[in-house]
Amino acid sequence: MEQLEEKIAKEAEVISDDILQVDTFLHRQIDPSLMDAMGKALAKRFADHGITKVVTVATGGIAPAVFTAMYLNVRCLIVDKSDVMPLDDRCSITVTSKTQQKDFVLSIENGYLNEEDRVLIVDDFLANGNTVAGVAELCHMAKASVEGIGICIEKCFQDGGKKLREAGYDVQSLALIRTMSETAISFRMQKEAFTDVF
Amino acid sequence: MEQLEEKIAKEAEVISDDILQVDTFLHRQIDPSLMDAMGKALAKRFADHGITKVVTVATGGIAPAVFTAMYLNVRCLIVDKSDVMPLDDRCSITVTSKTQQKDFVLSIENGYLNEEDRVLIVDDFLANGNTVAGVAELCHMAKASVEGIGICIEKCFQDGGKKLREAGYDVQSLALIRTMSETAISFRMQKEAFTDVF
Repeated sequence: MEQLEEKIAKEAEVISDDILQVDTFLHRQIDPSLMDAMGKALAKRFADHGITKVVTVATGGIAPAVFTAMYLNVRCLIVDKSDVMPLDDRCSITVTSKTQQKDFVLSIENGYLNEEDRVLIVDDFLANGNTVAGVAELCHMAKASVEGIGICIEKCFQDGGKKLREAGYDVQSLALIRTMSETAISFRMQKEAFTDVF
Repeated sequence: MEQLEEKIAKEAEVISDDILQVDTFLHRQIDPSLMDAMGKALAKRFADHGITKVVTVATGGIAPAVFTAMYLNVRCLIVDKSDVMPLDDRCSITVTSKTQQKDFVLSIENGYLNEEDRVLIVDDFLANGNTVAGVAELCHMAKASVEGIGICIEKCFQDGGKKLREAGYDVQSLALIRTMSETAISFRMQKEAFTDVF
């Protein structure tokens, strides 16, 4: 998605080998018109998947997920992310974020997903894929099917995308970063990403 | 705002004397078309205030704030909410949430607000007003002016709205709850709220 790639090229900051800071338009500060465009683009890619619910993780995924849900005309479910296990009996799973170098617990309230739900998972970043894989597992625990995974920024030099596609998920990313350094960020072409490479 | 009041009447759950759970459309699960309508309504109320930035607090405020910012054609700044003081030198303030019965630290990264900014604060709830007052204080610390406060749901039986209006802020709420119990929720009329009562 050209608009997102241009924004990354102009405003994103490479903090380390695997951390890309997008605080000016996606995290600390949100550019609503970009969120609207990203939501529209993701909804278009999954328009024929019969999605009944968009599922995301707080907080970075909320804005793009809500716009995607709006264009798909479904509700958006927020997965809780916490340092501790929930005290009640809700569905929960512990995942390790390699990017943040820590474990955390993902959970969803009982009753928000069921076997009739066809889920599109939306998140801001895809790197090692552990968070998204954890969300997918939570959906399966609730007996819902995962019909797609929509990502704003995928870091192709990490293996999350590869693992999720090999596991059979339809993963679509709006911007695919091939390499990044303090001086340059290069993007993988969309076509290349969805046909030749994986 | 009739659409929001209807949603509250239909789906919200009164958990205790001062806790209203709106998990099905605003918190755990988000209804995007309602967020869009609320953002449009808040933007309309503050259209002539020369707003340059919408400021909100994670996570409940994010969705309505981003839609408000979209309709005002400005960016949306997210205030960090944490249990601990930030280690760097960013603007921060400790506030007490009476609803959650705990202290937390609000902070914003330096450089995102300056003396030229005219801020609209948007949040999901207004109860005792400590969080919103803390956000306003942070804006002042960054030398920005607070031109308005836009709230989705104000609990009028708590004194946050009264205190903020007495302090001179233009507070506009989309739904004003006069009383609530397990069996009934009554709303204050908008006109009544902005003329006679305060």
